[in-house]
Amino acid sequence: MKTLKIIKIGGNIIDDDDALKQFLKAFATIDAPKILVHGGGKLATKLAQQMQVEVKMIDGRRVTDQVTLDIITMVYAGKINKTIVAQLQAHNCNAIGFSGADGNTIVSDLRPSKPIDYGFAGDVKKVNTETLEILLNNEITPVFCAITHDKKGQLLNTNADTIASELAIGFASIYKTELYYCFEKNGVLENVNNDNSVIENINTKSYQPLIENGIIYEGMLPKLNNCFHAVNNQVQKVCIGKSEMLFDKNNKHTTISK
Amino acid sequence: MKTLKIIKIGGNIIDDDDALKQFLKAFATIDAPKILVHGGGKLATKLAQQMQVEVKMIDGRRVTDQVTLDIITMVYAGKINKTIVAQLQAHNCNAIGFSGADGNTIVSDLRPSKPIDYGFAGDVKKVNTETLEILLNNEITPVFCAITHDKKGQLLNTNADTIASELAIGFASIYKTELYYCFEKNGVLENVNNDNSVIENINTKSYQPLIENGIIYEGMLPKLNNCFHAVNNQVQKVCIGKSEMLFDKNNKHTTISK
Repeated sequence: MKTLKIIKIGGNIIDDDDALKQFLKAFATIDAPKILVHGGGKLATKLAQQMQVEVKMIDGRRVTDQVTLDIITMVYAGKINKTIVAQLQAHNCNAIGFSGADGNTIVSDLRPSKPIDYGFAGDVKKVNTETLEILLNNEITPVFCAITHDKKGQLLNTNADTIASELAIGFASIYKTELYYCFEKNGVLENVNNDNSVIENINTKSYQPLIENGIIYEGMLPKLNNCFHAVNNQVQKVCIGKSEMLFDKNNKHTTISK
Repeated sequence: MKTLKIIKIGGNIIDDDDALKQFLKAFATIDAPKILVHGGGKLATKLAQQMQVEVKMIDGRRVTDQVTLDIITMVYAGKINKTIVAQLQAHNCNAIGFSGADGNTIVSDLRPSKPIDYGFAGDVKKVNTETLEILLNNEITPVFCAITHDKKGQLLNTNADTIASELAIGFASIYKTELYYCFEKNGVLENVNNDNSVIENINTKSYQPLIENGIIYEGMLPKLNNCFHAVNNQVQKVCIGKSEMLFDKNNKHTTISK
């Protein structure tokens, strides 16, 4: 079984032109089937402000009305996705940009409006791998933005971490899949203020005490839940850390296992 | 040799939600390999105004500075392209959105800054069909927006009519290619105020007198030049008219031939 690397990058890379350039140059050198998933960073909020559209967030998640959906579609699928694709092409990485609507690759359900109405937010229902397999077999690298669809014509705002884990799970029967969440820290930290206090391994047993002791909290909780969802569904390897972990095995990071 | 239909739609369809819906529903029924190319319509200008960015046009062509390039990338590759793809998927047409950067499908040269500096405008240099062929062979429908790249990391604003004709030419050795320019009129008109005065055939010989007599002028000139460029480069069939010509053979339209 071949290995497929699914790599998610977030705001610390996307919002920094130089960091993005450097990352993409390195990413292009990965000589294996790979899929890149990118979040939206701060650009959508910035555009909303320029357009004088109110930004509504609940528990760190964007409330997506029609105007906001237009904005994130423009920013995520347009500006960010195409900038990444063009830069990868410059480094001879044959990238194609995707939303979940393209090739019907990721179908979501509209999130129920209760208890909280997040508007046009989608929860992933099904990943269709056929088209992506054809591309991967032809050494093409799909680049996913955090938008899916309901197969009835509606685009839906979808969490990028979830897209990455669902893609990894979708491919787990075809490839030995590895899922990498790149963010601004070296991994899950024992002490949030000390980037060297990396917890190198977290498994199902050690997870619960880390929550109870307040070491894993807030934004890290959904991220870790995505990780466990992946390892519990045949994904072979799940890591969290700085993007450097991809290119330097000695770079500290957290590995999540069953 | 199989037939490939390359269909370009413009503002009269894109700027009208109902017309777009109706067109895409019909387009999805075309039971043959097909590529859709869409222009940008008025949405980019509208967004520029909302963002208080000045819109500069010279001879009906947009001057593309960095902010304008961001705007058209957001509108063309984001909002419009993904809206079209999601609607086609709802009609079981397996569409994937493309800019020329995706799959390195269309490489352009930055247009020289003299005599007129159009900024980040691209003139098509090469169409790479390999990836698109794989997709077409798997019954996937590429949907192109009017953006290309220079293969060095730079996105470029590129005329949608030109993208359509260059795609048709690029595929002419592989498929029997047919190129359809859909716009708001029934074709090239003898009298611009009479939609029934369609000139049914224009060839190289009859073209020049039509220009000299002022029947073909302004915006129709570059459109017709694209048509002749196509028929002079092995494209089998080139038509101009309302999108209805695709679905009703009796619908009047203009056919361009050598």
